[in-house]
Amino acid sequence: MEEKVNSLEELLKDSPTNWGRWGKDDEVGALNFLDRQEVLRGIKAVRQGKVFTLQVIIGSDKGDPVWPGRTSAIRINVNDKGYYLAGKNKPLYGGLEYADDIIIMFLQGTTQIDALGHTWYGDRIWNGYNAIETIGGLNKASVLPIAQRGIVGHGILIDVAWCKGVESLSAGEEITLNDLLSCAKKEGIEIQKHDILLIRTGWIAQFFKKGPAEFYKNFLEPGLTYRKELVEWFYKMEIPVLGTDTIANERTTHPETGIVLPLHAALMRNLGVIFNEILWLEDLAEDCRKDNQWDFLYVGAPLKINKATGAPINPVVIK
Amino acid sequence: MEEKVNSLEELLKDSPTNWGRWGKDDEVGALNFLDRQEVLRGIKAVRQGKVFTLQVIIGSDKGDPVWPGRTSAIRINVNDKGYYLAGKNKPLYGGLEYADDIIIMFLQGTTQIDALGHTWYGDRIWNGYNAIETIGGLNKASVLPIAQRGIVGHGILIDVAWCKGVESLSAGEEITLNDLLSCAKKEGIEIQKHDILLIRTGWIAQFFKKGPAEFYKNFLEPGLTYRKELVEWFYKMEIPVLGTDTIANERTTHPETGIVLPLHAALMRNLGVIFNEILWLEDLAEDCRKDNQWDFLYVGAPLKINKATGAPINPVVIK
Amino acid sequence: MEEKVNSLEELLKDSPTNWGRWGKDDEVGALNFLDRQEVLRGIKAVRQGKVFTLQVIIGSDKGDPVWPGRTSAIRINVNDKGYYLAGKNKPLYGGLEYADDIIIMFLQGTTQIDALGHTWYGDRIWNGYNAIETIGGLNKASVLPIAQRGIVGHGILIDVAWCKGVESLSAGEEITLNDLLSCAKKEGIEIQKHDILLIRTGWIAQFFKKGPAEFYKNFLEPGLTYRKELVEWFYKMEIPVLGTDTIANERTTHPETGIVLPLHAALMRNLGVIFNEILWLEDLAEDCRKDNQWDFLYVGAPLKINKATGAPINPVVIK
Amino acid sequence: MEEKVNSLEELLKDSPTNWGRWGKDDEVGALNFLDRQEVLRGIKAVRQGKVFTLQVIIGSDKGDPVWPGRTSAIRINVNDKGYYLAGKNKPLYGGLEYADDIIIMFLQGTTQIDALGHTWYGDRIWNGYNAIETIGGLNKASVLPIAQRGIVGHGILIDVAWCKGVESLSAGEEITLNDLLSCAKKEGIEIQKHDILLIRTGWIAQFFKKGPAEFYKNFLEPGLTYRKELVEWFYKMEIPVLGTDTIANERTTHPETGIVLPLHAALMRNLGVIFNEILWLEDLAEDCRKDNQWDFLYVGAPLKINKATGAPINPVVIK
Repeated sequence: MEEKVNSLEELLKDSPTNWGRWGKDDEVGALNFLDRQEVLRGIKAVRQGKVFTLQVIIGSDKGDPVWPGRTSAIRINVNDKGYYLAGKNKPLYGGLEYADDIIIMFLQGTTQIDALGHTWYGDRIWNGYNAIETIGGLNKASVLPIAQRGIVGHGILIDVAWCKGVESLSAGEEITLNDLLSCAKKEGIEIQKHDILLIRTGWIAQFFKKGPAEFYKNFLEPGLTYRKELVEWFYKMEIPVLGTDTIANERTTHPETGIVLPLHAALMRNLGVIFNEILWLEDLAEDCRKDNQWDFLYVGAPLKINKATGAPINPVVIK
Repeated sequence: MEEKVNSLEELLKDSPTNWGRWGKDDEVGALNFLDRQEVLRGIKAVRQGKVFTLQVIIGSDKGDPVWPGRTSAIRINVNDKGYYLAGKNKPLYGGLEYADDIIIMFLQGTTQIDALGHTWYGDRIWNGYNAIETIGGLNKASVLPIAQRGIVGHGILIDVAWCKGVESLSAGEEITLNDLLSCAKKEGIEIQKHDILLIRTGWIAQFFKKGPAEFYKNFLEPGLTYRKELVEWFYKMEIPVLGTDTIANERTTHPETGIVLPLHAALMRNLGVIFNEILWLEDLAEDCRKDNQWDFLYVGAPLKINKATGAPINPVVIK
Repeated sequence: MEEKVNSLEELLKDSPTNWGRWGKDDEVGALNFLDRQEVLRGIKAVRQGKVFTLQVIIGSDKGDPVWPGRTSAIRINVNDKGYYLAGKNKPLYGGLEYADDIIIMFLQGTTQIDALGHTWYGDRIWNGYNAIETIGGLNKASVLPIAQRGIVGHGILIDVAWCKGVESLSAGEEITLNDLLSCAKKEGIEIQKHDILLIRTGWIAQFFKKGPAEFYKNFLEPGLTYRKELVEWFYKMEIPVLGTDTIANERTTHPETGIVLPLHAALMRNLGVIFNEILWLEDLAEDCRKDNQWDFLYVGAPLKINKATGAPINPVVIK
Repeated sequence: MEEKVNSLEELLKDSPTNWGRWGKDDEVGALNFLDRQEVLRGIKAVRQGKVFTLQVIIGSDKGDPVWPGRTSAIRINVNDKGYYLAGKNKPLYGGLEYADDIIIMFLQGTTQIDALGHTWYGDRIWNGYNAIETIGGLNKASVLPIAQRGIVGHGILIDVAWCKGVESLSAGEEITLNDLLSCAKKEGIEIQKHDILLIRTGWIAQFFKKGPAEFYKNFLEPGLTYRKELVEWFYKMEIPVLGTDTIANERTTHPETGIVLPLHAALMRNLGVIFNEILWLEDLAEDCRKDNQWDFLYVGAPLKINKATGAPINPVVIK
């Protein structure tokens, strides 16, 4: 009986993997699908010259939407006009003055790209590297190779919230493969092989509307979750990148087993799918609903941070 | 006599400004030149599907190249396989484990976009806002509006080091307007109105080759500097973005007067030109020299950080 | 009518000050009362050789008790056995290995000593220095001079919670001068001139017992508050140091006027009394109740941090 | 032949240990020697009421003296008069304003007490705990138990620099047991069992006099080093605490073998001696030379930081 499954090993024992597919040294996984032809396919989607940026704001008056346990970024001025007024700093020769600041933040504390080595089970991370490699910084499958390559391709928005006629999916609401396909149909598009898949739930916007107290109460994110056919579809369609306006890109737990974040295991760790989380899709979605163009060029590159488990990104979408 | 000039007010008294050109509330300056037509002009430059990312690496074994006084970023794991080995953390239900990290960094401590309010003189920042607005965080002309808009346009690389036949310009070496124009000619291109201008000096690569001790000795960066005709050319050509592989995008001081960073005043503060500093141009330049395509689509968006004086960016160039 | 008073200027218009009492350059205020004779008076209180440390723990599983808006300290290992296991670090020659860590914290985010320049009104801090001096770091009346001098004297514990027969004072409960005097009487001691005054409310222990959610709900600390006779008593008794097991050493607001933290103004800013906040007094109090010795040698010195608004301290009490 | 020794295991194979002496759960080691009688012995040393604080300043204009690889503390205001001037913050009701700051620092980046688990060899830390316990924070033998107990006892200053007639010992200069004993004799004192031993080299003062560039050049600290008879003397004399005005409390390497920091192994890891490093002894020493009182009450307690490898301390000495 399925409800007796209590481990990822068991749940995913027949699940497909791409380990070794791009050699034993690979660290970028499904990004390999985005070759020069795919870049040019993305370019063709640009017809209007419209630009959208998909990062949430760091430092809103409500703080930052982050996974429970992480905290909002702290940005602090270390120089500004006040320092000159108080005689703490002198203008540069000629009179130039400047403001300067530092930040302290979780690298996954805003819109970000997960390194393929960010999560694992069974002591092996993406491509079979030993989880020991994560200690003190990711020796293997860090975010750096992804950041050096960049992510450019043909993207589509599946506005599930709109397709379901709601402002936001509700806590724990599942998105099925059928939801995706029928929503694409409603939008008048067909999901193609190698498409960068952005899924809108309306969820992250609730953080900014309702504030953190309400947002985190009984925290259970909506989204995709582990289903055999869904994972096989990702495998067959060779989806390189999955992005969602939720913190974790998937339902917090698998409904039947309670297993936490099974798609991080099945898609990221096993298939090498790149996760782009905490996206801001409100403005893009509104525009797509107006002009009925749901596909675009997606261009993004997380910060190049050596050994990092993930890195912030402000993705750019061009229609 | 020019050598008696000792203030930016005097040096730039007849220098052009764009204050008010886009309304009194403008915070993105010359980015306004990058409209939908310019986006589409950039798109047309994509012919091969090649992708380059232009950020320097954070956390190299030599540290990070930063303006003297700033320090290298500190990235630290706060969870990884070690925590599980030592019993400090338990796997999530089902067995998923993860690595997590934080970073402490100067927002201008890597490849970054300066906010228009980052530097000023005469108590007024870009568009005339009071410099008091910078205290504790930029109320006006922070990097946020730039990050929300994104930067997309037609870019060109002027490989001055290559044109001069050197691996790197030398300390304090000036790049003149004529250098730019003749180098473009050598590359077989013509700089056009609204082009995003990337200038390669070879300088920042020396940090990684020689290490910080050698790099900072008698620190005096090469680059453009204040010349009346240069500033007027920027004004007339309506250059939206200037990027260089140096820390400050210009010669550290004005040769004749010793005034520090006069182009931050003349271009950024007065004209609203967006500065993209500390670029990594080595791989792009090598490719341009091989395939002789020196123009491209430039796509980038700094992180959306509220009130910030600047923000990291990993720009993507597509040829 | 008193309820119309809405400013510290008005409330404290006849309140005593010690400005200028120790010269125009003084930065340690009432610490001047603690001369060598007072040190020796403190030494005489040591009769048993018992030692108590009065700091709360940083990094408890419930976090740290801090003023709302501040956040708990973050302590992170940057080296440990895991780094050696993963090959990230090599033993020193001969085989020595080590663990190392960093901390990010509010300087007032644990048991601490306030600098005399920490709070002010009317644009003047302690001794009349201009509040402009606080910008970017305290030029005047920072915690440094206090840390260099150290705090050593005859201390007494007034266990108000015990005297009132409660585990902890309730939210907003006022402690009057009469409460202090009658509690001292019950303890069998008399408060003497120049005594370091430690007042136990039982409040901070509730943070660790109940957790932050309960602790911060309807946050209104109990404690002393502004009363004309109380301030005059502090002035006349020349109390050098006031310490309490609350975050702010006083009732959050003045009951009749709603003015926030009036004793920070009347005692710290005007009289130069040193505030020692967020004390852990549970173990000391329990022992005093047992052996009936309520006086002791108090020895403490906040960290010597240049320009700081306050600094952590782990005070030592010897009976 | 001794020069073939290349490991701590070999060098220290016959070296004494105190493991198990205070039970298998002990985490404070030689502090156990400081009982109530020792506290009272320390109290008796107070004859004049003079107070000295022994921490170096954090945030001097030259930075902080730290072990190579660590960096100076960063202290930053997050509120001050500037924020009110710029309208970024409003006074509390009644008019109170305040300044607030945070710090980012290595816990061993100033005068500090090492946790007994700070260094180890052979996979075992103090008292035999497994070095695995250090991962992510010290589960065992952290600085917390030391901070909770406090350090109070009879201290003496051995001013080796003065005894040798130099301003500062030179790089790599060894202090022998005989140096200690003869210097004590010159001072007219005798080192007694359980004395807190402070040794002055003059070394750390050179950091502030000469600046970091000169200080770190060919970095090789002077001090005690491993000698069989020295370690046995510490063992026999039951020295609870060793403090020096150097960063590591011992010569950087063992002269004959090159083994790094052998006393961290022999004294801290094996005997449980508490190390108090980076002391500021200049003012105390000057006074001792004047009044010829070389003994005193030492009172100090590092910050109570859960799981920390060490913690800052501002020790107080009373004569």
